[in-house]
Amino acid sequence: MTENLKKTIYLDNNATTQVAPEVVDVITAYLKDQYWNPSSMYDPAIELANKVADARASVAQSLGAAYPDEIVFTSCATESNNAAINGLHRAAIKANPNRRRVVTTKVEHPAVIEVCKRLEKDGFPVDWIGVDSNGQINTREFVRALRPGETAVVSVMHANNETGVVFPIEKLSRIVKQTDPKIAFHVDATQSVTKLPINLSRVADSDALDGAFGRVDALSFSGHKIHAPKGVGALYLRRGTAFEPWMLGGHQEKGRRAGTENVPYIMGLAKALELERDHIAENYVKMAALRDKLQRGIEERVPYVVVNGKNSPRTPNTLNVAVYGAEGEAILVLMASRGVCISSGSACTSGSLEPSHVLTAMNVPAGALQGNFRFSLSRFTTEEEIDRALDAFVDVVAITRKTSSKWDDDKGVPID
Amino acid sequence: MTENLKKTIYLDNNATTQVAPEVVDVITAYLKDQYWNPSSMYDPAIELANKVADARASVAQSLGAAYPDEIVFTSCATESNNAAINGLHRAAIKANPNRRRVVTTKVEHPAVIEVCKRLEKDGFPVDWIGVDSNGQINTREFVRALRPGETAVVSVMHANNETGVVFPIEKLSRIVKQTDPKIAFHVDATQSVTKLPINLSRVADSDALDGAFGRVDALSFSGHKIHAPKGVGALYLRRGTAFEPWMLGGHQEKGRRAGTENVPYIMGLAKALELERDHIAENYVKMAALRDKLQRGIEERVPYVVVNGKNSPRTPNTLNVAVYGAEGEAILVLMASRGVCISSGSACTSGSLEPSHVLTAMNVPAGALQGNFRFSLSRFTTEEEIDRALDAFVDVVAITRKTSSKWDDDKGVPID
Repeated sequence: MTENLKKTIYLDNNATTQVAPEVVDVITAYLKDQYWNPSSMYDPAIELANKVADARASVAQSLGAAYPDEIVFTSCATESNNAAINGLHRAAIKANPNRRRVVTTKVEHPAVIEVCKRLEKDGFPVDWIGVDSNGQINTREFVRALRPGETAVVSVMHANNETGVVFPIEKLSRIVKQTDPKIAFHVDATQSVTKLPINLSRVADSDALDGAFGRVDALSFSGHKIHAPKGVGALYLRRGTAFEPWMLGGHQEKGRRAGTENVPYIMGLAKALELERDHIAENYVKMAALRDKLQRGIEERVPYVVVNGKNSPRTPNTLNVAVYGAEGEAILVLMASRGVCISSGSACTSGSLEPSHVLTAMNVPAGALQGNFRFSLSRFTTEEEIDRALDAFVDVVAITRKTSSKWDDDKGVPID
Repeated sequence: MTENLKKTIYLDNNATTQVAPEVVDVITAYLKDQYWNPSSMYDPAIELANKVADARASVAQSLGAAYPDEIVFTSCATESNNAAINGLHRAAIKANPNRRRVVTTKVEHPAVIEVCKRLEKDGFPVDWIGVDSNGQINTREFVRALRPGETAVVSVMHANNETGVVFPIEKLSRIVKQTDPKIAFHVDATQSVTKLPINLSRVADSDALDGAFGRVDALSFSGHKIHAPKGVGALYLRRGTAFEPWMLGGHQEKGRRAGTENVPYIMGLAKALELERDHIAENYVKMAALRDKLQRGIEERVPYVVVNGKNSPRTPNTLNVAVYGAEGEAILVLMASRGVCISSGSACTSGSLEPSHVLTAMNVPAGALQGNFRFSLSRFTTEEEIDRALDAFVDVVAITRKTSSKWDDDKGVPID
């Protein structure tokens, strides 16, 4: 192995991210010295509770939330999604038994899809909204699905974890609230927080994708996609939103999420957001430039590739390419052997042999479903890494196609 | 302030514990270097998944579980309790719609009580079993409540968080399984893991309280009561136990708990158990000796006190005393000002003005409900700390009684 190949090039940041060194330091300090239970009544515990309150205010500020208590700390985005959908739905039914329908999309993360499927199994109607070939939501279908007095919860992701495609949250939330202001609007923003601007206080009337989330009632996200650790997340709940707690027990988080607070990770989550909040535009430009360079390189140097979601607005860090005539597994293995970590589909569904539900919903042709690859960058990704990853990919696709049963290597075209 | 008073004496280990230095080291190492998503398919991620598998095997071994995959990692005991009761209950109903009843006790932790109350609200009958004045479960009531073919889940704590009173799990599980082997038996062992022996593979037919948990189907516990951090816990699920997952999403934890694994804390949880598992008897003796010394000292030097749960088997680290004619808040504040951290009731219900539901269920007289104090030790507690805490308590009770409206200081007796 040459020196070059020893260093891992990590381009799977939509699966998880490295913990920022500043975040590790914060967490370690709290793990070592600040073990108090923030619910206890003596001074050091009260001081620690005040630190948690500071972290809450900081997270609120990072997201443009008007009030610190709109932030509920959870153990992950999966929990936030489970809590949001179940908690908003239960509260809606409590207020009005006819308000029991759910609207979501076919391309959500499993943490939303599985919760909605369970509700469906329990007898609550769910409308599954489709997307077009660009991965963009079918707005007509969306509008038709909303039923005043009957729809309880709408749950729509901000950015797709597999393709990076961004849904027009401002527009969708406006449609929802104009249809019936009592419909709760939940957004899974796990892949967009710190990648795109989000301002939960700003109300706009354009589709500018500028983060005007003033009509969003609830928003989920996770620490481990933003350089905080796995095991912490948050749920934004707008003041006044009817919500029945999902995880029950103690009075923590103002009765909205029981369980002793994971103080070190909460402090780390706040820190991770602080590190990014003033640099979102700058990191966007940097990551988008590198992503676009990688995309152009692949389009130019690898024949028969398609960039999924190319014609939609996308998060700046995500590139999903379908490679015709390729063996997906072989390419991943060879890329890994060259120290480049990328993925096929999402980590949350890896190990599964099913084709991606996202690409299936986008009607990606069968020949491209077998070899699709996600490159996801972070603010730590360098141009040198992108160059090396590109060279490796070009090389590996060519090598694997030589022996692929789906590729005619003489003619240089995919078979069938 | 004298030198003596500067160091905090932490006697609130049933609320939370300090993280063991060895556990901090393990967690920090994983936070720094091992950020991979264990579901990813490249080598470093697969190696990390293997480390998680090792941790799972270690936790299983620490609890005498037969198989590593009987351990499901969660974010806390509250989550484990929510998942266990809901997941066992849902699975029971799925198999047999008539099997929908729940049996629990009046002295459980809120994370069990609130889940059962929610089920009750949703139309499922819950039997709330009482305790006697020693805090011991009413076995006759328990036996009567079990209904073959109708009871879905029994949820009973091992040791009480407020009093330390230990329930005879071996005996109760035997009764349950003799009544109907299909009733799922769940134990909240949050306060007993590492304090008492627990062997999930051993079946016995005596009430020896020796940890023969071979008939227990599910068991919850938390990291932060055993010198691991807040934010991690586990749920033991015996192989073959019917269970429907509660937190839905990805395929993690063999489909029983979605959400990317909190690898650093999982490694820390395994380490925390490893540090204790060969020393349970030794730590028991050490903590019980100190607890008994404190108890005797209070009984000898403070008039009109009652030790709650005194005549029951108790965890070795817990002492709950009711002080007649005392002002609870004032005593806590003065103890804290002398650097001694103790609590009134549990941290999970602190801030509440309601008298303890545990002591109420034990029929503790009203005069003793206002001033009850929990001292909870850890394996780090020293004799010097106990001596100083005792002196402080004797002093503080005397001082506060002088101005208490419930105490006749001339006669030296409580009023009424």
